[in-house]
Amino acid sequence: MYDGALQSLIDELGRLPGVGPKSAQRIAFHVLSRPREEVVMLSAALIAVKDHVRFCDQCGNISEEDLCSICRDPRRDQSLICVVEEAKDVGAIERTRSYRGLYHVLGGAIDPINGIGPDQLRVRELLHRLGDEAVQEIIIATDPNIEGEATATYLTRTIATIGIPVTRLASGLPVGGDLEYADEVTLGRAFEGRRRIDQDD
Amino acid sequence: MYDGALQSLIDELGRLPGVGPKSAQRIAFHVLSRPREEVVMLSAALIAVKDHVRFCDQCGNISEEDLCSICRDPRRDQSLICVVEEAKDVGAIERTRSYRGLYHVLGGAIDPINGIGPDQLRVRELLHRLGDEAVQEIIIATDPNIEGEATATYLTRTIATIGIPVTRLASGLPVGGDLEYADEVTLGRAFEGRRRIDQDD
Repeated sequence: MYDGALQSLIDELGRLPGVGPKSAQRIAFHVLSRPREEVVMLSAALIAVKDHVRFCDQCGNISEEDLCSICRDPRRDQSLICVVEEAKDVGAIERTRSYRGLYHVLGGAIDPINGIGPDQLRVRELLHRLGDEAVQEIIIATDPNIEGEATATYLTRTIATIGIPVTRLASGLPVGGDLEYADEVTLGRAFEGRRRIDQDD
Repeated sequence: MYDGALQSLIDELGRLPGVGPKSAQRIAFHVLSRPREEVVMLSAALIAVKDHVRFCDQCGNISEEDLCSICRDPRRDQSLICVVEEAKDVGAIERTRSYRGLYHVLGGAIDPINGIGPDQLRVRELLHRLGDEAVQEIIIATDPNIEGEATATYLTRTIATIGIPVTRLASGLPVGGDLEYADEVTLGRAFEGRRRIDQDD
């Protein structure tokens, strides 16, 4: 619809996740209205991510060095490994500020329909890390869906043979949600996982 | 939350219109997962827009040459000028494929509260174009809001002294909408602008 360069930019932006044709156009016109320096910064930031960001040799989290900032941090609790599907899950858990251990990024979840089994994930690397005597608990934080549950079950069975305790994040009612709107599986999980209220608290 | 380059990209993306922190993160991880060549194309497209796209000397539409593709096109009806606020309005009207005349982009609307009067818009350039005897109708397509209406009124009075017919896009019920949900101003306009149904049609 537009001339050369503007339409090319709209097309490129439209390939990004969550950016539809209207948003792509809006962003392109915004770019057109901003100072060149500002656009150069965005343009350079895109390339920098490809050139500088890679994956941590130990945990598979994103990193700019051999080991990510979490694996390098001596204040992190080396006895805990939290297993997640994707590097962005690490970010989500870090934002809670309630976990101080290490991570292991699988790179996905077991999904036989799409041909993803344990060999396509970083499971071998995880088992290798468990050889370290420091590890005392594996916290499985895969997504609470079919693939995530299958992955959790597989890992629990595999790690059981090594003798390290495995835990799974609690399923239940989302905080701030309405009980009547919870789906039946979540509500069922909330019942199964109910905890005694300690009357001394 | 993330290391250097990834967080920089998330920050830069977050400055774009309609891109919140979650979308910025999602896009950044997407960029990380794509081949470098693909990211280079987006990066280059951003710079190309700043370096190659400018504004048409005649109508103010976006262009990569002195005159935009519409002003250069001899098949466009040179007797009609459609006045719009922004270049993106040209795109919206072009997509309807129901207008074959020329445009004039004002670069905004009269908005005294924000200090925007006729001198801050491309009004003088419009009046200059009206000196050309070819122009037989000015179609005012400013936005149907307070600023757009004020601009339409100002232009209508100014152009009336030159003696060229001025029209305004119809206000009324949106096609596909529900009458009961139309706001009262729109419904009032739809009554004012009612047209006789030609029984020969």
